[in-house]
Amino acid sequence: MAELVRFGVSLEKELVEKYDKHIQKNNYPNRSKAIGDLIREELIREEWADNKIVAGSITLVFDHHKRELTNNLTNIQHDFHEIIISSQHIHLDHDNCFEIVVVKGKPNKLRQLCSKLKAEKGVKHASLCLATTGAEI
Amino acid sequence: MAELVRFGVSLEKELVEKYDKHIQKNNYPNRSKAIGDLIREELIREEWADNKIVAGSITLVFDHHKRELTNNLTNIQHDFHEIIISSQHIHLDHDNCFEIVVVKGKPNKLRQLCSKLKAEKGVKHASLCLATTGAEI
Amino acid sequence: MAELVRFGVSLEKELVEKYDKHIQKNNYPNRSKAIGDLIREELIREEWADNKIVAGSITLVFDHHKRELTNNLTNIQHDFHEIIISSQHIHLDHDNCFEIVVVKGKPNKLRQLCSKLKAEKGVKHASLCLATTGAEI
Amino acid sequence: MAELVRFGVSLEKELVEKYDKHIQKNNYPNRSKAIGDLIREELIREEWADNKIVAGSITLVFDHHKRELTNNLTNIQHDFHEIIISSQHIHLDHDNCFEIVVVKGKPNKLRQLCSKLKAEKGVKHASLCLATTGAEI
Repeated sequence: MAELVRFGVSLEKELVEKYDKHIQKNNYPNRSKAIGDLIREELIREEWADNKIVAGSITLVFDHHKRELTNNLTNIQHDFHEIIISSQHIHLDHDNCFEIVVVKGKPNKLRQLCSKLKAEKGVKHASLCLATTGAEI
Repeated sequence: MAELVRFGVSLEKELVEKYDKHIQKNNYPNRSKAIGDLIREELIREEWADNKIVAGSITLVFDHHKRELTNNLTNIQHDFHEIIISSQHIHLDHDNCFEIVVVKGKPNKLRQLCSKLKAEKGVKHASLCLATTGAEI
Repeated sequence: MAELVRFGVSLEKELVEKYDKHIQKNNYPNRSKAIGDLIREELIREEWADNKIVAGSITLVFDHHKRELTNNLTNIQHDFHEIIISSQHIHLDHDNCFEIVVVKGKPNKLRQLCSKLKAEKGVKHASLCLATTGAEI
Repeated sequence: MAELVRFGVSLEKELVEKYDKHIQKNNYPNRSKAIGDLIREELIREEWADNKIVAGSITLVFDHHKRELTNNLTNIQHDFHEIIISSQHIHLDHDNCFEIVVVKGKPNKLRQLCSKLKAEKGVKHASLCLATTGAEI
């Protein structure tokens, strides 16, 4: 288990009261968990800005009827195999597929993969969701 | 295959030239695919704002050593089973798990599930990534 | 002066050390100011989501040579005079004007004004920047 | 007046019909203006990512009763005078000031100024809003 440290924070009373209502509404057990989350989110944004190793996911929505599309998407993913951890494929309806690719590596490389997948004809949506490897935070 | 329509667009010459360089850099085969993507992204933002049925994914990073955490996350997901399509679990390292839950339903319900998962102690990151069911777009 | 309260926060040692480096890099005098800022940003997002009275600014970039454009922008602003506090106009170069309109009111009304201004021919950029009235936070 | 070019776009019929409803709802006079706006927004994001010269605004909300705050904010702004075009100051209520600083320069420099202003005690909100100089787009 990670070692904990305790420290004091001084803030305006009115602000703290308003925040207490906010975290209660969002199901938080206490202020430490809520403030820790805000800090982690800030540090994750920094990991991405500083080009550190990050984890994330690429979400694709596409029409699998498009000729050659499934092949092309697979080929592109193979070219980037060193940053792809796994992928999950879901049939949303008769036409639409939903695919999530979990990726880990440098942010620029992850963006490049997302951009290549997105440019393929028949891909209706491709976006890169930022997360973290969890190491150190 | 979806029926195509063709229409004309008038824009400043300088703008079009700059955009052509941009789409080439981003691997697009032609202007129609690139402009179609911009339009789809705009409509997806509208689907989320208008509380239409959408698809998306919730990304979780958590420390599986935390007592009871895995159980709690599973219980919460069961309470929301009607909006969960599938989930994928990855072991990032000795401590950290990466879980992606594919969800489909009203945006508010999706946000509520994400907020409940995020509030659990031991969850280091939880975010909801917006996508689309692909229907109609 | 606002009354201060002091409370304790318990977080993982490694996380706190990483955050300390982050806030030093960002010129913060201490943890309380940095954490207070994260909390205020979260509460401002909530004010906008909950349709509370907020303050913000609309940034416009436009080509003042476009016939009737300046008149049209002024007319639209007059229709929304009850949410407009002031505006500032800057000549960026021979062609381009930069105008900032400070607005206060319900988020939906602010978005509607921004959308009307943006739709005018000759407007190259219009965006609504979220801020706060500062009351209670 | 800028020279116009006209080109054709092929898209799925269903998508175009949905987009036509969307642009009508948003007061657009025609597809060309709406598509031009999407393209300009994309190019503005690129200007910021590529560290080109951009224009933007920094919004500050602060409590002017804080000792020395107004002086400090002025001093910081003077240190960055080469990227500041103008500023506008509004008294929101008895305590709160709203200040908008129009800035032009490299994105990193703009972010640095925003970060310095934000770190000052008494500043409740500071954000950098991205816009463009309008040149070339």
